[in-house]
Amino acid sequence: MNEITQTLQMDHLILEALREDISSEDVTTNAVIKGPKAGEVELLCKQDGIVAGLSVFARVFALLDKGTEVEFCCEDGNPVKKGQLMGKVKGDIRVLLSGERVALNYLQRMSGIATYTHAVASLLKGTKIRLLDTRKTTPNMRIFEKYAVRMGGGYNHRYNLSDGVLLKDNHIAAAGGVAKAVRMAKEYAPFVRKIEVEVETMDMVREAVDAGADIIMLDNMSVEEMKKAVAYIAGRAETECSGNVTKENIGRLAAIGVDYISSGALTHSAPILDISLKNLREV
Amino acid sequence: MNEITQTLQMDHLILEALREDISSEDVTTNAVIKGPKAGEVELLCKQDGIVAGLSVFARVFALLDKGTEVEFCCEDGNPVKKGQLMGKVKGDIRVLLSGERVALNYLQRMSGIATYTHAVASLLKGTKIRLLDTRKTTPNMRIFEKYAVRMGGGYNHRYNLSDGVLLKDNHIAAAGGVAKAVRMAKEYAPFVRKIEVEVETMDMVREAVDAGADIIMLDNMSVEEMKKAVAYIAGRAETECSGNVTKENIGRLAAIGVDYISSGALTHSAPILDISLKNLREV
Amino acid sequence: MNEITQTLQMDHLILEALREDISSEDVTTNAVIKGPKAGEVELLCKQDGIVAGLSVFARVFALLDKGTEVEFCCEDGNPVKKGQLMGKVKGDIRVLLSGERVALNYLQRMSGIATYTHAVASLLKGTKIRLLDTRKTTPNMRIFEKYAVRMGGGYNHRYNLSDGVLLKDNHIAAAGGVAKAVRMAKEYAPFVRKIEVEVETMDMVREAVDAGADIIMLDNMSVEEMKKAVAYIAGRAETECSGNVTKENIGRLAAIGVDYISSGALTHSAPILDISLKNLREV
Amino acid sequence: MNEITQTLQMDHLILEALREDISSEDVTTNAVIKGPKAGEVELLCKQDGIVAGLSVFARVFALLDKGTEVEFCCEDGNPVKKGQLMGKVKGDIRVLLSGERVALNYLQRMSGIATYTHAVASLLKGTKIRLLDTRKTTPNMRIFEKYAVRMGGGYNHRYNLSDGVLLKDNHIAAAGGVAKAVRMAKEYAPFVRKIEVEVETMDMVREAVDAGADIIMLDNMSVEEMKKAVAYIAGRAETECSGNVTKENIGRLAAIGVDYISSGALTHSAPILDISLKNLREV
Amino acid sequence: MNEITQTLQMDHLILEALREDISSEDVTTNAVIKGPKAGEVELLCKQDGIVAGLSVFARVFALLDKGTEVEFCCEDGNPVKKGQLMGKVKGDIRVLLSGERVALNYLQRMSGIATYTHAVASLLKGTKIRLLDTRKTTPNMRIFEKYAVRMGGGYNHRYNLSDGVLLKDNHIAAAGGVAKAVRMAKEYAPFVRKIEVEVETMDMVREAVDAGADIIMLDNMSVEEMKKAVAYIAGRAETECSGNVTKENIGRLAAIGVDYISSGALTHSAPILDISLKNLREV
Amino acid sequence: MNEITQTLQMDHLILEALREDISSEDVTTNAVIKGPKAGEVELLCKQDGIVAGLSVFARVFALLDKGTEVEFCCEDGNPVKKGQLMGKVKGDIRVLLSGERVALNYLQRMSGIATYTHAVASLLKGTKIRLLDTRKTTPNMRIFEKYAVRMGGGYNHRYNLSDGVLLKDNHIAAAGGVAKAVRMAKEYAPFVRKIEVEVETMDMVREAVDAGADIIMLDNMSVEEMKKAVAYIAGRAETECSGNVTKENIGRLAAIGVDYISSGALTHSAPILDISLKNLREV
Repeated sequence: MNEITQTLQMDHLILEALREDISSEDVTTNAVIKGPKAGEVELLCKQDGIVAGLSVFARVFALLDKGTEVEFCCEDGNPVKKGQLMGKVKGDIRVLLSGERVALNYLQRMSGIATYTHAVASLLKGTKIRLLDTRKTTPNMRIFEKYAVRMGGGYNHRYNLSDGVLLKDNHIAAAGGVAKAVRMAKEYAPFVRKIEVEVETMDMVREAVDAGADIIMLDNMSVEEMKKAVAYIAGRAETECSGNVTKENIGRLAAIGVDYISSGALTHSAPILDISLKNLREV
Repeated sequence: MNEITQTLQMDHLILEALREDISSEDVTTNAVIKGPKAGEVELLCKQDGIVAGLSVFARVFALLDKGTEVEFCCEDGNPVKKGQLMGKVKGDIRVLLSGERVALNYLQRMSGIATYTHAVASLLKGTKIRLLDTRKTTPNMRIFEKYAVRMGGGYNHRYNLSDGVLLKDNHIAAAGGVAKAVRMAKEYAPFVRKIEVEVETMDMVREAVDAGADIIMLDNMSVEEMKKAVAYIAGRAETECSGNVTKENIGRLAAIGVDYISSGALTHSAPILDISLKNLREV
Repeated sequence: MNEITQTLQMDHLILEALREDISSEDVTTNAVIKGPKAGEVELLCKQDGIVAGLSVFARVFALLDKGTEVEFCCEDGNPVKKGQLMGKVKGDIRVLLSGERVALNYLQRMSGIATYTHAVASLLKGTKIRLLDTRKTTPNMRIFEKYAVRMGGGYNHRYNLSDGVLLKDNHIAAAGGVAKAVRMAKEYAPFVRKIEVEVETMDMVREAVDAGADIIMLDNMSVEEMKKAVAYIAGRAETECSGNVTKENIGRLAAIGVDYISSGALTHSAPILDISLKNLREV
Repeated sequence: MNEITQTLQMDHLILEALREDISSEDVTTNAVIKGPKAGEVELLCKQDGIVAGLSVFARVFALLDKGTEVEFCCEDGNPVKKGQLMGKVKGDIRVLLSGERVALNYLQRMSGIATYTHAVASLLKGTKIRLLDTRKTTPNMRIFEKYAVRMGGGYNHRYNLSDGVLLKDNHIAAAGGVAKAVRMAKEYAPFVRKIEVEVETMDMVREAVDAGADIIMLDNMSVEEMKKAVAYIAGRAETECSGNVTKENIGRLAAIGVDYISSGALTHSAPILDISLKNLREV
Repeated sequence: MNEITQTLQMDHLILEALREDISSEDVTTNAVIKGPKAGEVELLCKQDGIVAGLSVFARVFALLDKGTEVEFCCEDGNPVKKGQLMGKVKGDIRVLLSGERVALNYLQRMSGIATYTHAVASLLKGTKIRLLDTRKTTPNMRIFEKYAVRMGGGYNHRYNLSDGVLLKDNHIAAAGGVAKAVRMAKEYAPFVRKIEVEVETMDMVREAVDAGADIIMLDNMSVEEMKKAVAYIAGRAETECSGNVTKENIGRLAAIGVDYISSGALTHSAPILDISLKNLREV
Repeated sequence: MNEITQTLQMDHLILEALREDISSEDVTTNAVIKGPKAGEVELLCKQDGIVAGLSVFARVFALLDKGTEVEFCCEDGNPVKKGQLMGKVKGDIRVLLSGERVALNYLQRMSGIATYTHAVASLLKGTKIRLLDTRKTTPNMRIFEKYAVRMGGGYNHRYNLSDGVLLKDNHIAAAGGVAKAVRMAKEYAPFVRKIEVEVETMDMVREAVDAGADIIMLDNMSVEEMKKAVAYIAGRAETECSGNVTKENIGRLAAIGVDYISSGALTHSAPILDISLKNLREV
């Protein structure tokens, strides 16, 4: 992961998370260990999956003590197996103990998302469809979770409300129709934005194409309707299909022929990947 | 939820989450709606579950515009049904559109945790065992997630490393044994802390009881061993059992006779509860 | 200006600016005025121009004391004349005195940008060319300055490095050519991004068109070369021309036929518009 | 520039400016450069002027990556010529690309102010008059802009409302006259403050001298009146003249005999000095 | 106290202090009081003294809940007597309980400083000497403590290192003598600063007078030497005497004839004034 | 002191304190010293006492310039004597001068508290009573002050409202009696909390014991009553006695037989320990 992104967009959140876990001091550790003591601990995988977030994991310890050394024997995006040694952390044992939980909370969650995303994306193999995430991320975790999606083989939809235009029913109603909404967006938004329109009927599909929408999102339509829509659009706009997509139900969408399928479940409902720190010992 | 907690511990995180989603402006909304416009939208439940986080949901809109009015027809901790109207939000339509995602991201996740916790806790009905959460929470979400656990019928373990003493194997090793570790903790930690010790063998159980531990956590022990341990302890300390507890496997622990069972899954692997804002209209 | 943008993206900067000007207290005002005293002051225009930033001006006083009332007799984007009364501020005289400088510093600078932008944009009247700003804004003033550009009749280019892709010579060299760079960008960037490529020769123009660039920026090319490039591109991509564009030299670019001309001078070299607060009196 | 000032007063503003430009990540750079790559780029002057802000320029890169090396062949306050090599930046190419704009935005603006200040100050050569800045600085840029004024040969007036007393008409009116205002200020303000009074008539000049003002600011007076005032004051207070002073009109003030002339234009209307980063190459 | 100072300089510190005391929630109050409950509590003085900080006390509750009403029957600077009712706080009982300690911690400390300052200042009655504070304040309490000094009848020395020039032995040595140091300070510092020089011998006194120092601080001199110095200076500079001044030893300095005596003890060693909240009852 | 605590809980407060003292720049130092100059200064004790805060003192300089070297010849908790050399600070003289006051403000105050605590604790020698601090700390100084209490031989009571349960009269009244309050607290608070109850009569003592309180605080009771209460409780709960305990009056409490005595004076009324930096010289 680019260190600049980490410095500018992650460090303050990681520090906030560390303060959430240590609001005055780590009482237990400070009670029994009175000064620096060098040690080493192993990072062990306890479940098969895809790893994501190793540099975040390392950064937690570095923010506590920049002398901490972390070595990994896998990389973000790699498959990992139950029982596999993923890396080692060496440093002051107090740092290893006090930082453990926050470091794992990030790594487990990010790896959980990568694992789930990978499983879903695998179901699209052989098609040209790209699997997208959504803005249904955990508050203050977006930069981490969208990265994890990429590590799992997914792609990112817009990052937030500021960097993408997506005209939904309420925007269209406020503007007075699809054509007007697209025109207003092109007039107002920075010209580097593509204009995406959410449609629910064939009439809206036609309007969106005529209005010059760059992307058309098919929402709440049956598989048959979506096929018809894609055929009608015929490459004049990119197509996305959305709505409660999970590992269980994505299969039926693969044959529709859309360019993108987006799934909130990737970030809002993936269980963690079980990973732990074990075998701490003095060195 | 106590408004003081909200003011001191949640508002800055909610604002950070809003800035995560709106890093310059909501381009779409600002493109099509040029000024204030009064509207109303319904909060609808799309899945059965337990609701948690209503005041957080409302707070998101209030932080954007304190003129926003939110009325709920359910309360945190209540069961909700698919299709049920949960409340209404009235205010400037731009606020309703720009705040929707962050508000739902909080509410869905918190309700998801409450729902999962309730399901697990139900399996302990009829016993005296209390279901506990852990520190395996999402970074920067602890205050929200621990509250959700309570709404689901669970109880909170320590909040963080600063407000509870839990002597694990590495602490014990560093101290030179259970007895020494407990003594050091009693000397160092504020005297209002209970001392909890994690044990893995009957020998350690005996040591912990002798050392005057307030709570003994049975870790990595078989059901039979745990029963023996509880019988030996015989009320001289409170007892907790831990380790990969999920909805699927908690049943076997109910008969052991411990006072508490803690489960990381409550906060790290609960899927969201599906809730949405629908039927926005001008008023 | 949308109040949400103001709340999330401006308030903390305005407060920081107020603290820059009042690092302990307003010694002069506090020395001579010992308590609240109601007053009114006039906002007067001292130079012809276009106004921008009225809501920011008002917000400065509101952040100091939400009881302050501001009434304007013009709107952002309006032309104003030397000597014209632009509005009135009513409130505690201490607030009027302590907030005056920061409020004017914002309003004068934003209006200066709007005025300069308007003058430059006027020179493109009758063409289809849109005048764009750049990222050459004053640090920590971008949200204010890009808004001012719009009020002056200009349009916004990308907001920052995160919400637009612009492949410059160094990116292209790193990727190994225009085609590869575009492909890598389409693979990596959120699909809602348009891909813009900066070119300096006709060869690069051809490569960019072939690679499917959405926008082609003509840089460091003569007027003749740019005309040739635009003719070659023939609508297959949007075209932008850039490079030290000022009020003095934009005329020669009007006939090239590009879609956009961007000018850093709009934000980095516009002088302020002279505006002042006068005739403070008790009420 | 003193590194302490930089650490305490500039770093957080520079970081905020970097986050303004990189709200999630530098998409373009991250798309085409997947890991660290060593490079070097030249800092070139494109316009004659006075340089200011070199250490701020360097600090931007250091905050992104402390391994970045910057070497300069000129110093703050030096004249620089069009085409002159000002320095080199060596480091990770991603850092050079992602930090370029913010680094130049600071350096160009600060150098623009130094250049303009130098031009104005030159017009006072041969007199004993010192050229002063004002509080008409860009919000959140004061520490940078006041430094740039000094590099251009100007002097700083008070830093903000907290560190200087300046009694204007409204303060005087509130106090009930010049004498009372000066007395109240001497009673209230820390005794290390000089008391400055703004006057518009000879009567007020006399009052201010009698009241023991340390500095008298002549405002809105004709050249003749100012000469008379200075003659009357005769060294009993320092004298300052103010009011829309620019490069074009400062000449007429040189013969008045005041000690100081202040000019808002130094900071609010100086155009930038054109400086760029060129010839990036791998090393 | 001026509300602007409070908004800009105190609120963030008060909030930080509240978060210091409530790092997750007020467990006790939330355990026994489940919702809003209106109440009233009395602010009682338990020791004779001078009160300071009433608006800070009120602000603590307002920041927790702006509906809280506070009425005072005394004002900052007033003498208060043991047993005296100082005011009442009405609001949600949870707010009264959760805010009590922080509110009192501010009020007691500020009143303690005012009380001690008043006692010391009283010993200078009948002389023209003003009692000054120093920069020996509690970290992050300066704005509160310097205000309390004024309420006790003292005056403020410079606020911090940025708003006053005080040349001490090390500065003088670095500059190469008193005359050079004063000249350098006049060249560098904003001209609204008075120049103060710390001297330890009659030779330095003479040098300082000749160099045009505005204020001369007599340090480490005997009472006899100080008298001689004051006589020599004879009004050509203001005079200050400093060094471990306490209530016990200030008497001997009263006859020296200096203009100012400064005492660090006012802020670093004043005990609190005992004040408490009593008789909480529902209303 | 554990460096993690320092990083997470102290650094931001120290930086805030440094900005409080340097709001723009150290004008005096910057006027006379134009660049880095290596120097050394001695830390001298000017009064007998117990030292606390050495690492905080060092951290102030490190935050200004991490190249600063600090060597101590004593440790926190050590007795120090008037005239004793406590350590040396080596680094850029500008850093030594600009950081001096804040570094000493922390060290003097913390050492003052350690000294006072040690004096009070000494009066309990030979008993089993532990001396406790309270929450009557200086706002934003708690982490420093509670540490200083430990260095002086005292013990910490709860850190704040979030990590300890203390049921006072108003909580008990709100709950409807001691028994109910204890039950509600056990139901609500994390189970790792001990439940403390404040009592004023023998009836309440009995109720508290029956309710299973872990700690009973005897408040506002005569020495005789307290003895009776302790006898009655007979080890069934820990006992604490509180209320205006100072060095002068603690003696009478030593024979009561309670486990803990808490004293607010330790943190709210201890005078500083006089320590200074002397003999700065170039090296």
